[in-house]
Amino acid sequence: VAESDASTSLLDRTWRRVRGVWQDIATSALPDSDLARLRERMQACLEARGGEVSARARAAGLGRTYLGLDRAGRVRFLKLLASEFDIDHERLAVVAGRLGASTGGEERRTAERLLRRIAEPPRARLLTQFNALPEGVKFLVDLRAELIDFAKDEPALAGLEEDLKGLLAAWFDIGFLELRRITWDSPAALLEKLSVYEAVHAVRSWVDLKNRLDSDRRCFAFFHPRMPSEPLIFVEVALVKGLAGNIATLLDAQAPVGDPRQADTAIFYSISNAQRGLVGISFGGFLIKRVVDQLSAEFPQLKAFATLSPVPGFRAWFDARIAAGEAEPTAAERKALAKALKVDASPPLKQLLADPKWPKDGARTTALAKPLLRLMAKYLLEAKREDGAARDPVAHFHLSNGARVERLNWLADASARGLRQSLGMMVNYRYDLADIEANHEAYAGEGRVTAAAAVNSLV
Amino acid sequence: VAESDASTSLLDRTWRRVRGVWQDIATSALPDSDLARLRERMQACLEARGGEVSARARAAGLGRTYLGLDRAGRVRFLKLLASEFDIDHERLAVVAGRLGASTGGEERRTAERLLRRIAEPPRARLLTQFNALPEGVKFLVDLRAELIDFAKDEPALAGLEEDLKGLLAAWFDIGFLELRRITWDSPAALLEKLSVYEAVHAVRSWVDLKNRLDSDRRCFAFFHPRMPSEPLIFVEVALVKGLAGNIATLLDAQAPVGDPRQADTAIFYSISNAQRGLVGISFGGFLIKRVVDQLSAEFPQLKAFATLSPVPGFRAWFDARIAAGEAEPTAAERKALAKALKVDASPPLKQLLADPKWPKDGARTTALAKPLLRLMAKYLLEAKREDGAARDPVAHFHLSNGARVERLNWLADASARGLRQSLGMMVNYRYDLADIEANHEAYAGEGRVTAAAAVNSLV
Amino acid sequence: VAESDASTSLLDRTWRRVRGVWQDIATSALPDSDLARLRERMQACLEARGGEVSARARAAGLGRTYLGLDRAGRVRFLKLLASEFDIDHERLAVVAGRLGASTGGEERRTAERLLRRIAEPPRARLLTQFNALPEGVKFLVDLRAELIDFAKDEPALAGLEEDLKGLLAAWFDIGFLELRRITWDSPAALLEKLSVYEAVHAVRSWVDLKNRLDSDRRCFAFFHPRMPSEPLIFVEVALVKGLAGNIATLLDAQAPVGDPRQADTAIFYSISNAQRGLVGISFGGFLIKRVVDQLSAEFPQLKAFATLSPVPGFRAWFDARIAAGEAEPTAAERKALAKALKVDASPPLKQLLADPKWPKDGARTTALAKPLLRLMAKYLLEAKREDGAARDPVAHFHLSNGARVERLNWLADASARGLRQSLGMMVNYRYDLADIEANHEAYAGEGRVTAAAAVNSLV
Amino acid sequence: VAESDASTSLLDRTWRRVRGVWQDIATSALPDSDLARLRERMQACLEARGGEVSARARAAGLGRTYLGLDRAGRVRFLKLLASEFDIDHERLAVVAGRLGASTGGEERRTAERLLRRIAEPPRARLLTQFNALPEGVKFLVDLRAELIDFAKDEPALAGLEEDLKGLLAAWFDIGFLELRRITWDSPAALLEKLSVYEAVHAVRSWVDLKNRLDSDRRCFAFFHPRMPSEPLIFVEVALVKGLAGNIATLLDAQAPVGDPRQADTAIFYSISNAQRGLVGISFGGFLIKRVVDQLSAEFPQLKAFATLSPVPGFRAWFDARIAAGEAEPTAAERKALAKALKVDASPPLKQLLADPKWPKDGARTTALAKPLLRLMAKYLLEAKREDGAARDPVAHFHLSNGARVERLNWLADASARGLRQSLGMMVNYRYDLADIEANHEAYAGEGRVTAAAAVNSLV
Repeated sequence: VAESDASTSLLDRTWRRVRGVWQDIATSALPDSDLARLRERMQACLEARGGEVSARARAAGLGRTYLGLDRAGRVRFLKLLASEFDIDHERLAVVAGRLGASTGGEERRTAERLLRRIAEPPRARLLTQFNALPEGVKFLVDLRAELIDFAKDEPALAGLEEDLKGLLAAWFDIGFLELRRITWDSPAALLEKLSVYEAVHAVRSWVDLKNRLDSDRRCFAFFHPRMPSEPLIFVEVALVKGLAGNIATLLDAQAPVGDPRQADTAIFYSISNAQRGLVGISFGGFLIKRVVDQLSAEFPQLKAFATLSPVPGFRAWFDARIAAGEAEPTAAERKALAKALKVDASPPLKQLLADPKWPKDGARTTALAKPLLRLMAKYLLEAKREDGAARDPVAHFHLSNGARVERLNWLADASARGLRQSLGMMVNYRYDLADIEANHEAYAGEGRVTAAAAVNSLV
Repeated sequence: VAESDASTSLLDRTWRRVRGVWQDIATSALPDSDLARLRERMQACLEARGGEVSARARAAGLGRTYLGLDRAGRVRFLKLLASEFDIDHERLAVVAGRLGASTGGEERRTAERLLRRIAEPPRARLLTQFNALPEGVKFLVDLRAELIDFAKDEPALAGLEEDLKGLLAAWFDIGFLELRRITWDSPAALLEKLSVYEAVHAVRSWVDLKNRLDSDRRCFAFFHPRMPSEPLIFVEVALVKGLAGNIATLLDAQAPVGDPRQADTAIFYSISNAQRGLVGISFGGFLIKRVVDQLSAEFPQLKAFATLSPVPGFRAWFDARIAAGEAEPTAAERKALAKALKVDASPPLKQLLADPKWPKDGARTTALAKPLLRLMAKYLLEAKREDGAARDPVAHFHLSNGARVERLNWLADASARGLRQSLGMMVNYRYDLADIEANHEAYAGEGRVTAAAAVNSLV
Repeated sequence: VAESDASTSLLDRTWRRVRGVWQDIATSALPDSDLARLRERMQACLEARGGEVSARARAAGLGRTYLGLDRAGRVRFLKLLASEFDIDHERLAVVAGRLGASTGGEERRTAERLLRRIAEPPRARLLTQFNALPEGVKFLVDLRAELIDFAKDEPALAGLEEDLKGLLAAWFDIGFLELRRITWDSPAALLEKLSVYEAVHAVRSWVDLKNRLDSDRRCFAFFHPRMPSEPLIFVEVALVKGLAGNIATLLDAQAPVGDPRQADTAIFYSISNAQRGLVGISFGGFLIKRVVDQLSAEFPQLKAFATLSPVPGFRAWFDARIAAGEAEPTAAERKALAKALKVDASPPLKQLLADPKWPKDGARTTALAKPLLRLMAKYLLEAKREDGAARDPVAHFHLSNGARVERLNWLADASARGLRQSLGMMVNYRYDLADIEANHEAYAGEGRVTAAAAVNSLV
Repeated sequence: VAESDASTSLLDRTWRRVRGVWQDIATSALPDSDLARLRERMQACLEARGGEVSARARAAGLGRTYLGLDRAGRVRFLKLLASEFDIDHERLAVVAGRLGASTGGEERRTAERLLRRIAEPPRARLLTQFNALPEGVKFLVDLRAELIDFAKDEPALAGLEEDLKGLLAAWFDIGFLELRRITWDSPAALLEKLSVYEAVHAVRSWVDLKNRLDSDRRCFAFFHPRMPSEPLIFVEVALVKGLAGNIATLLDAQAPVGDPRQADTAIFYSISNAQRGLVGISFGGFLIKRVVDQLSAEFPQLKAFATLSPVPGFRAWFDARIAAGEAEPTAAERKALAKALKVDASPPLKQLLADPKWPKDGARTTALAKPLLRLMAKYLLEAKREDGAARDPVAHFHLSNGARVERLNWLADASARGLRQSLGMMVNYRYDLADIEANHEAYAGEGRVTAAAAVNSLV
């Protein structure tokens, strides 16, 4: 089986069932005539008519109705829920006014309690009741993924989406999650999901996948006890000697298998969130910490934990810098470039990089390394978003977790995607447990990016 | 053997570790000098100083500190948490005032969102973080049990207890619970817990326990995935022919084992909540419903599902009626009693029942049956609390779940406890799935108690 | 894709470890100088020097020595074991002579007991002790596979191989085997092994494999409790409507998934033995019987259980018949062929079939069907080995199990292999539980092949 | 629950089912008229009439017939099997005669092969087929226990029992057994079995049992994969400081729980075989070795592994010595005794020990220690059976395993049984891995008992 065939093969007809049973069978719209009855059913659930147990059974019925609807029907369903079972704004305003005017003591306490109750929209309780569906938690996670989509066109759904996020944040508290190691002995169905969810370095085939689970590799994922066959987030680790600086080497299925007992470094080369419906509920930092602990226990000889990470935001920033004329090489660099190109004067960077063959030309890439690595260092250490966070999202994630910028790697990912995103450069972020808190505080407090001396000296 | 004896017989030194590790090692008080540092540590957790991961680790440290404290120290710890990390009442009042004055639109929405955020006390977030402890969920459940105790003397803790209840209610949503059957092949440690938690008919010995798990019995419990060895609530069921009317017969370990395939009735003869820290979060109705479903699937020939229940509130009500002179037998009943006692005129009920030997005297008990069953029917059907609920708590539980009063059983529990609580009478509540919703609505809506004709005719 | 291709696509470097760890590391020969010491170590094991426990530990050491040897070294190792620890032939002859001369009674009994003990070669006990190796059972199974190979060139090893077969036959008694269903949720490592072991219709890709595990398919295997991740034999089943007559249709991954609840027929389309070291120890009949039972329980609506089987021996028999001039079409068939070919007189079958395009030519294949199906029926019903068994090994297997020849299928397997083996024909053998014993007796006793009327009428 | 009640409670009506389902339902005899049919059914199984699969099903039917018989019926059943399906003695004698006369080469090989086949009685194959019963292995183990019983009165069954022993020895090869730790979290049904099977120090109650599974104790058992809920043999271990010399102290449920991390000695204080049907198939040495390995890995600080063992054969030997006048105290000892008893001359040992109160009298026991410990040392080191083995069976077991006699303990077991068996003395046998082989060889080879210097010096 060729690599390309295998990769198509990962998404076949069965897969759609795995991703979400209902998408295949969702065919009915929701006619106006049904809306009143639907409202009535929602009302019955919320009033626990016939008792709590019956109400849950009814909620499951509502969930099944939803699953039977097409996109337009679902939007109508959710808008009905969002609008009809929202907070009672009028009453909230009245009670709030009363609290504003209260003078403390028991009166204030009573008003506060009432206010908190009124401020909780009834629709949130109905969402909870969907938990009665057979795979209720997964249903709600997928529902949120849909709500995020729908809310782009229907701002009225934003509040409902927020309510659901709050519910899921409580249910997916980190304390509930299980860390599990994934190996070649894990269920094929689970490995297939990893292949689909892998967001950093696409899985090309089962051979590629098996290579990532070899004895010198580790893969860990968080699971929720009520979604036992759905990974929430997973990380792929290579146990190697020294800091790995090239992703193709790590992913080479033909490379000899190393002896993990001799490794001194654990390289986290891919971290992927698997559930769109859990966006904004953060597990990554905990995952890294737990995996560092587990690997340290299994391999006490490990001396360093670091990532080999892409820099997805570099190119946009770089292009803007180029356009503004702020990113040109220094005179010395230009001279080196001219020499490498065997011309009198080097053309501008933009022109040089426009030639798709540039990464293959040894002399040219050598001459390019210096100016581009310098710009990369500048980008990572100095480019900020308005709120003070690092401009690069991957950098922001690791810096928030207390990692430092350890090393920049030239031509570390020469794939089309790697060149497009970051001109082939990748970064090692290092997690040194002793420094994590200080690094985090420096970054979170003052926006200061900690980096190794060699990186700092590039700027 | 009374409940207290059972505890002695089953509770030994190891058990105390099961119930709560820390009680044995909780020896240190919490001196004033430590309070400031403790406050600082709580603050650090809430600010997520050093990052989310570190904050969790710190919260676990706080939890361990708590476990090391004696009772007085724990109260101080909790009061500190309750008072220092409560809602910012002033600010809430200001924002509430603003909302009260808002005119709608985006302004109102913003105010509402802000208000909801402020109305959430920070201490609730800290409670969540305790989930990072190794058995964090069990810790929080036990913490609530302690808070309920402490709050009796320290009203300042009531708010904190309420926050914790809210948190646990979200985490113990019925959708997360697993129904598991418990058998003689279950871990001995779990069976030992059942013995201790059994609140209705005390487990007298391992033989008694084994008998309750025999092939003509069933025992089911709900478990939470993060407290896998702790039952939350459990029910004991006997598979019999006809409605069982005597508890001693059911619990007789010497009785021959019936063939469950021939049973037509499932008798729920004991339901016990196992976690004091989950008081007010209701699982019983769901448990009964799930067990009815499961038994129906396994034994399609079952025709009736009913309880054999105590009437714990009867005696107090009866004594008050007697004192008020409202509970005396009718003339015909008095005559029958006189005849049974071979006297001219029967003494008053109170005097008759004062003789501890009355349940052994066949003629006397026969004559007593009529007036006492009539009073029992009156109690169950008519005695109400102020809020309209049935006065008897067990009756209220089953009526809320949609059961009906099916039969009253004379001398069904002649144990000391049975005589003390209900003059030996017990009740069958019947769950007929077809009527459950209507029964519930009649009871919850109009306070009407549904009963079999034979019971109604007693009044 | 031919089998060899499949192996390349699924076998990668890790696989070799799965198949047999030691093959990669087996590098040392066994010099003469080591033979004496080796003999001494074997002797020590058999004498249980230092106690039984130590002897086992030593046997494991011997096993590891073996694993470190190359092919020549292994042969020497095994020859040493076979020759030095064989039966004491002289002594056996003496004792046998004594028994031959005994007159019965206690004397005979004693001689018999002694004879049985002496007739057991010591080397067999040493083989047993290898069970002390971590995966000792798998080691012995693989050792037998090697012995079978080696014994071809070294007849001296035949006796040792027989001893080992006896040992494995006792250990792999059918009563010890577990039937397990294999699904897409099984470990990927196990599914990979299925791919490699599949001997009938090569697995072409993971998509092909997943298709064979879809909801309208079943796959079952026998496992030994001490080789839990190694299937011994497995069967692939399709749940369909009516008797399936074409293998390509069954294996088509693009075909819509059927509803197994609507199927009336279970088609066993592939049965593969997975362990060469268990040759001659038969599990197939038991596997089919157990799977029929299990499917009947899960799908009571199934009316027929049948195979869709290749006829691997047909072509050789057919070619011999042709060469002998015994297989030519009848006059009517020749006429039909001539017409289909639009010629005056049909060329001989041999010439017709020599054209590789014949299976694509509709008219020609139609005209060929009759004579070839007739010959196939003749082959299956009448061609015998010297010992009276059916000449075709697959036919012999199913007929021994009590199946009958149900239907012959024209162009049922138009793959290169199918054409090469059986001119594209396949057979359905039907398992009708009511007739199995009678069919078996007819076949095993009298060599009579039971077949459906339509098949019988072809001859 | 009082200790005595609890101990009765371990054997209740359900237990009988655990021990052997069939004993309760075995009621029918086996009339003569059925014998011919039974013989025919056995014959059909052995001929594999209807195929192998059917034969197995028939064998299961035979097994069920057996289970339905009473004792007399079973004996008849087994005698039929033993006599009708024995070796063909005549034919064996003929073939043996031929082998005795053979001159070697292929002729001899053929004769040998034939002889081995004929020497295998057909009934052994039928026993194997019983493995087809649902719990076939347990059936055969229990069948052997019955055969051992029956064979006492029916010598004709001895051969069948031997065949079955051979079969079970192959199936229960140590390489197939699983070592499992048993804890308070093990199934109650399993713990109940331990209570019943415990043969050394009877389990008095569930509290006693729980104490033996506490955190400073360990219990391990071997299991066969096809009898997963039946322990084969188990050992109870205490982790203590120093060599334990008193059994009551070890079994005291009120004693404080020690910290196993601080223990330096593991005391094996009870080893029990659980299956009478496996008598003569030895697991004990392997169990001790595996447990030593496992404990060494978990608690690297352990410095010594020893038993605290009864001496069940001492009293009989001692009484014979006394009777022969060979066991009287020395003059010095007699003087010490007289002094302790405050009499002029000590009465003979026999008279002294006849007083049941002797163990309570401090002065007397002190004076008795010396002569009795000397005799005990003499018994252990010098008393032999005819075959040269140690006369005491427990001593023989541990000495065969390579242990040495480490210490004799005075008044180590003052229970009625302990006094009766060994005048209250117990022995520590020590397992020192470095010496095990040498000790075994000295004992197995020369009958030399290795003991600590202090023990040797007593003689």
